Order: sequence, then C-alpha cells, then structure tokens
Amino acid sequence: MMPQLPFVETVTNLIQEGEFFKLKKLLVNCQPAELVELIENEEEREQLIIFRLLPLKLATEVFEYLDRDIQRHFLDNLTQDKVADILNEMSPDDRTALLEFLPANFVAELVQSLSEEERKVTLQLLGYPEYSVGRLMTPDYIAIREHWTVQQVLDYIRRHGGQSETISLLYVTDARGVLIDDLRIRELLLADPSVLVRRLMDNRYVKLSAGQDQEEAIDIFRRNDRVALPVVSDDQGILLGIVTIDDILSIREQEDTEDMQKLGGSEALDEPYLATPLLSMVQKRAGWLVVLFLGELLTASAMQFFEGELQKAIVLVQFIPLIISSGGNSGSQATSLIIRAMALGEFTISDWWLVLRRDILSGLALGLILGVVGFARIAVWQSLTPIYGEHWLLVALTVGIALVGIVLWGSLAGSMLPLLLKRLGLDPATSSAPFVATLVDVTGLIIYFTVALVLLHGTLL
Amino acid sequence: MMPQLPFVETVTNLIQEGEFFKLKKLLVNCQPAELVELIENEEEREQLIIFRLLPLKLATEVFEYLDRDIQRHFLDNLTQDKVADILNEMSPDDRTALLEFLPANFVAELVQSLSEEERKVTLQLLGYPEYSVGRLMTPDYIAIREHWTVQQVLDYIRRHGGQSETISLLYVTDARGVLIDDLRIRELLLADPSVLVRRLMDNRYVKLSAGQDQEEAIDIFRRNDRVALPVVSDDQGILLGIVTIDDILSIREQEDTEDMQKLGGSEALDEPYLATPLLSMVQKRAGWLVVLFLGELLTASAMQFFEGELQKAIVLVQFIPLIISSGGNSGSQATSLIIRAMALGEFTISDWWLVLRRDILSGLALGLILGVVGFARIAVWQSLTPIYGEHWLLVALTVGIALVGIVLWGSLAGSMLPLLLKRLGLDPATSSAPFVATLVDVTGLIIYFTVALVLLHGTLL
Repeated sequence: MMPQLPFVETVTNLIQEGEFFKLKKLLVNCQPAELVELIENEEEREQLIIFRLLPLKLATEVFEYLDRDIQRHFLDNLTQDKVADILNEMSPDDRTALLEFLPANFVAELVQSLSEEERKVTLQLLGYPEYSVGRLMTPDYIAIREHWTVQQVLDYIRRHGGQSETISLLYVTDARGVLIDDLRIRELLLADPSVLVRRLMDNRYVKLSAGQDQEEAIDIFRRNDRVALPVVSDDQGILLGIVTIDDILSIREQEDTEDMQKLGGSEALDEPYLATPLLSMVQKRAGWLVVLFLGELLTASAMQFFEGELQKAIVLVQFIPLIISSGGNSGSQATSLIIRAMALGEFTISDWWLVLRRDILSGLALGLILGVVGFARIAVWQSLTPIYGEHWLLVALTVGIALVGIVLWGSLAGSMLPLLLKRLGLDPATSSAPFVATLVDVTGLIIYFTVALVLLHGTLL
Repeated sequence: MMPQLPFVETVTNLIQEGEFFKLKKLLVNCQPAELVELIENEEEREQLIIFRLLPLKLATEVFEYLDRDIQRHFLDNLTQDKVADILNEMSPDDRTALLEFLPANFVAELVQSLSEEERKVTLQLLGYPEYSVGRLMTPDYIAIREHWTVQQVLDYIRRHGGQSETISLLYVTDARGVLIDDLRIRELLLADPSVLVRRLMDNRYVKLSAGQDQEEAIDIFRRNDRVALPVVSDDQGILLGIVTIDDILSIREQEDTEDMQKLGGSEALDEPYLATPLLSMVQKRAGWLVVLFLGELLTASAMQFFEGELQKAIVLVQFIPLIISSGGNSGSQATSLIIRAMALGEFTISDWWLVLRRDILSGLALGLILGVVGFARIAVWQSLTPIYGEHWLLVALTVGIALVGIVLWGSLAGSMLPLLLKRLGLDPATSSAPFVATLVDVTGLIIYFTVALVLLHGTLL
C-alpha cells in the first residue's frame, strides 16, 4: 500500500523551474523511505537529479533501498568519484549483494574504485559460498576485551563505534580474536562505569558459523530474540563479523515469496509482480504449465483405455470432473499445510510417519464426508427426476466409494510428496498445488473406473 | 529443524535421581531457546520441575517463548505467587497476548494478581481493538527531554533504563508528552557527553498511531530499517509506547502462514501442523472441501446439459480433464502470484487495470502455447493410429481453441478474484488455488462445449 506522497508534484515542479537550492532543502528533511518512494515514482532524468542533490550519508542510505535496476542506472550515470564515495559508504553486506547482481567486468571496475580497506572486505565476503552466512555478514562490529572497564568501553565506542553497523551488541574476544561472550549495550549502560567487563559476562551466547547455510541462520534468529548474531570461523571460533536482523528479514521474506509462487505452480519470479517483464513472466509460468499439461495428457490416455466402459455407461462421464477435482483439492490443501510447516521447521523428514498417520486419518474422514455428500446428491436428484436410470443406487455407490479413495489418496500424495522431495535433496515447495492435482487426476480416473468395474459389473458394464 | 539436544537425557536422568541442585546448575547456564526446546520435549511432570528450578528472570524469558498450551498448564499448576511474579516480569505486550488466549474468568483472576502498576498497563493495552497497533505496544521505553546533556541521558538510563524493552532508541518528548524526535543510542554514545540532546536532534522520525492497523505497521517497519517504532495517540501525538520488531516479525510470519494455508484451500490452522488436533484439522479442511465440492457439482449439471452432444461425440470426453485442469493450473498460478504481491504491498486495487492488461497478454500467450501442444498431440497420435476418426482435424482444432480460451479465462479469474475480494473488504487470500480451479472447471466445460458446437456442427454434432 503506497500512500500518495503530497510532495511528488512539488518536487517535479521545482525541477522544472530549476529551483535546485529549494529542492535540496526539501529533500534533506525527508526520511530515506520517502526518498526511495519519490525516486521510484519519477522519470529516469528526474531520478538522477534528485539523487545528485542528496548529501552522501543520505544518498547511501537511499541507494541501499533502491531497486536493483535503478541502482544500476545510477552507477552507469554518476561520476566515478560519486560512485566510489557511495560504494565506500555502503554497508559491506549490501555492497556484496549489489556486486553479485552486476556483470563481472563491471564489478571488477567497481571493486577497483573502493578504498584499499573496503576492497579487502568486499573480496573476502565474495569468497564465501552463495547462500552461506559468510555472504550476509558485515565486519563492522565492536569487539571489546574482558579486562576493560565499562567506562573504557564507552570511550572506545565514542572513538571507534562510528563505523559499526549495530551498537546494541558488543562482542568480547580474547587475545587471539576468539569470541568468548556477547554483551548487550543495555547491560553496560545500566552498570557502574568502573565495573570490569568480565564482571558483566555470563559466557552464554548464540553464534553462527561463516560456512553455515542461511536457512539455518534464519532458524536460529527465529529461536533467539536478537537484533544481530556474531559469525565465527568454522574451525577456530574466531570472530569474523556479525549478521543483522534486517538482512535475515529480507531473506525470509524472499523465501516465503518463492514458496508461495511455487505452490501456485509457477517458478519464483525474482522480481516484483508488476516489474517482471511480460516475456519472463510467461516463461516462468509456461514451463510448469506445459509439464503439467503433458502429465494431464495421461488422463486422455486413461480415458481412451476405458473408452468401452464409457460408451456403455455414459452416466459415469458427468462425475469425472467432480471426482478428480475433489482429489486435487484435498491434495492441494495437504501440500500447502505441509510445505509451510516444513518452512517453519515444525518437523523434519524423520517425522514422516507422524505426518502419514495424521493424513491417513484426516484423508479418510474428509473422503467419507465428500462421499456421503456425493451419494446424497445423486439420491436426491434421482428422487426428483430419475435421470440416473434403474441402477442409480449402484452409480451413487460408485461415486461415493471412489470419492473416499480419491480424497484419501489426494491427501496422502499432497503430504508425502514434499517430504519425498526434501529427502531427495530437492525443494519441497516444488510440490505445487497444480502438480499434486495433476498427479491425483490421472490416478483418480483409474480409481474411479476400477471401482465402477467392480460395482457395475453385470449391470451397466 | 530441531537439532537433538545432547543434554535432554542428562536432564531426565538428573530428575529421576533427584539431583535437583546439579540440575539447577546445569539449567542456569542454558540459553532461553535451549530451555524452551528442552521443556517442549519433556513430559508434563518434568516440564514443571525444570521450570520451577529456573531463576525468575530466566523463567520469564522462557515462559514468553513457550507454547500457549504449556503456558496454560504452568499457570494452572504453579503457586499463585510464582504466577504473579512471572506475569509481573513479562513484557506487557507478551502478557496481553497471553491473557487474550485464556478464558475470561481465568484472566480476571490473573489480572488481580498483577501489581497495581502492571495491572493498569495491561488493562489499558487490552482496551485497544484487536489487530490494532495499540495491542502490540509496550509502555517500557525511555523518554528524554531536549535540554538534557548526553551525560544526563546516560545517567538517566543507568537509573531508569532497567525496565525498558529496548535501549537502542530513545524518544524525545516535550513537556506535554508529545513526541518530537527519536534518537538512536549510537548517536548519544558517539557524541561528547557535554552536548545537549537538542544538538543531536533532526526532527525526522517515523511513528505509528495506536489505532492503526497492524498490517500497516508491518508495512512501515518493512520500509524503515528500525528495531522499534514509537506509538502516539491518534489525536494529539502523545507518546504512548513502542512496538518492537520481534512482535512485528511474529505477526508477519503468522500472516504469511495463513496466506499459504488459505491458498492451498483450507482455513488457517492457528497452531503448528502436528499440534493441531485431528478433529479441528478435519473441520478446517472439510468446510472448504465441501463448498468446492458443491461448486464442482455444477460440472455434473453442465455435462448433463450437454449429454446429447457427449453421446454423439464421445471422443470429446477424453479431453475434459485435460482442458479443465489446464484452466485451473493457469488460474492457480495467477492467484498465488497476485496474492503474494498484494501481501507485499506491491500494488493496490486501484492498479487493477495494470494487472488485467498484463494477465490478458500472458494468459493469451500461455493459452496459445498449450493450444499448440494440445493440437500437436492429437495430430501426432492420429498419424500413428487413426483413433480420432475422419474429423480428427476439427477435434484437434476444438481442443486447441478451447485451450486458448480456458487458459486465458483461468489467468484472468485467478488474478482478478483476489482484487475483487479485497475491494469487497474480504481477505484476498480466500481466493485459493482450489477455489479458482473450481470456478474455472465449470466455466471451462461451457467454453469447451460451445467451441465444439460451433466447430463440429454438421459433422460430429
């Protein structure tokens, strides 16, 4: 929900009138979030003008939040000096994320423009595997020693804390740089200035390792109420950096988005809906649609196989969509419940038996409910106008029993498929609602016709 | 993913051997998150023993993270004194959330056990409408005045900051309590102790109103990189409390979970998957399943209506599942993309025209792709064995053209339905994948048979 900004028009007017001094005064009093919105609503030329007027600190903050494409456009059009200034000011993790996105030769050039020190940091961050905690961390933290007094720490922060990404948490390291504790700034602010850091320590802390998977880090953040967590080297426990919660949040949001898009049966979009080019949108949807279509073609083959029965008992045809879609719906429910529960870490694949047991019972219950409704529908219609012929009871039984089997089967397929995919090392979210529905459609037809063959043998068939 | 704790066994053994002193020593060195996990893995009796051994501060922290049912169990079984101590120690927002969940008479009793001051706070928080920002806020913040020096602020924090939920942000208020600015603690820590607060102020701040919807608050947090935001009264801008990011996070996660569960076609579960009682799980799934089933019954009526045509051209039957499920799949894709984009605030209902235009184009493109594949499938099969008879070309054309229409229609229904629901003041996520699929199934049949009537008139029909 974007509230319409009252000053977008004012800004556009000021630019047209060339009133850059007035404009600058207006802009420096805005929040970074407002400026981001303003820039994203302006034309390319105006975007650059606005951005050039911002003081460095504000410009950097705004830049970090801008759309990748606008960032790219700015990098292409700003002077080399201004680019270098902004890159140097950016927090190392955001800078790494940006460089990831740009073509390699462009990156090489940009890295050259960094100061010696920032270049080292960036190259180091770029060295960790993708999706590792190392990629998220920023080396801007405050490390203190246990023999310092609170006052010494406060003095140290006043002198060296300007670069730190967060000041809420301080990290106590030993002489070798090994992490031995974390302290909240509140503990220091509440303590007497003459107290030693050692006295405040409890040697209890939560940490991440640089090589760890980002998903695990999300889980650890979820279970521990911290705005930042320290990252240590995998072997010796040396403090390398910190990961702050804002980076974790955006990753979590991105993963939730991907899960949801996959659940709906398309590939993840990677970009906001309206910003995704139409062609790439069609590509991301067409792949799965065609695969599902080819899978669904098997229903045509199945029906071909039962063509003789169909011709003899045309009454069976009209319940086909009803029956197969009920299986698909129950499978779609099960798969979305399971995928979300797995994303939240509520259970692991080793709990598959618990899940299976639950879904046998609930699938059976749901199947019985729909089976009874289906049976009743046919019985009631038949009593009004006898459209189902003399064997209506057998037809109704066929539909009812097939529904129990298909709803149960849909529920089981929907819940077990994500677990199976995870076991095979694939993303459970690939088990989309349409995927499960297609799987259940084909098998559902076979269940339906098999029940019909058994029950209607000697009468209709 | 819960890592198996090495000490669960040790703890169980210590309890059995009655070694409570040793056990206590072990427990006080644990992280709250570890203790929560430990308790959730133990039997009811052991849970209480472990919890009783924890010192008050740690006990409260652990309590806040426990499952509602375990919390309830503890409240029922602990002495009134211990309960009062824990409730008094809890942060007001977590306490309000807990009281919300308990039966009214039980709440009345618990509120009585609170201290005068905490009771006032709790009753006040309980007075804001559900899902309002007021419900989330905690009144534990630090308010400072603009004529204080940095040193005075630090002294003030040392004396009064112990109760504050966050110390990272300080709020400057005027004599009437109206919020005039926020300051990060880092700005104070980096400044000279003799500087006045006024000198550090920039009068730029982001705030929430107590009556505001929580969803808006989530949006504001997303757009502004803060660990907490101040809440002011709707009318005069008086500072009432703060909302911290951990509360926002859990709401966001909960909403994402609900969206995903609804998208799959069941009601939101409210509890973790394995913790949901089987009966309530069946209830939450059965409601929609039956509604969808009743909707899907219309397919039977539609087919009944076209029974004459079906009998004449039985070859049409075998493509029914294929055709209607392709429409459902395309609708399911569209609806999940749109629901997620709306949840992220990427566009509002006023942008419906942009969305419609995109989906007409992509729906048409996807329909053409599937139409060509469907046509080709029939042509190739026919060239191998002439199963589709002399009019195979017309049949293939019917299938191909119907596919274009149905995929386009599915895409449009899937994208417009969430917007329509939102417009009607309903939750867009109600437009689940199965809901859209059912809608498309019924209309899809009509499209298919209409195309068939036009193309096959005079030949097969």
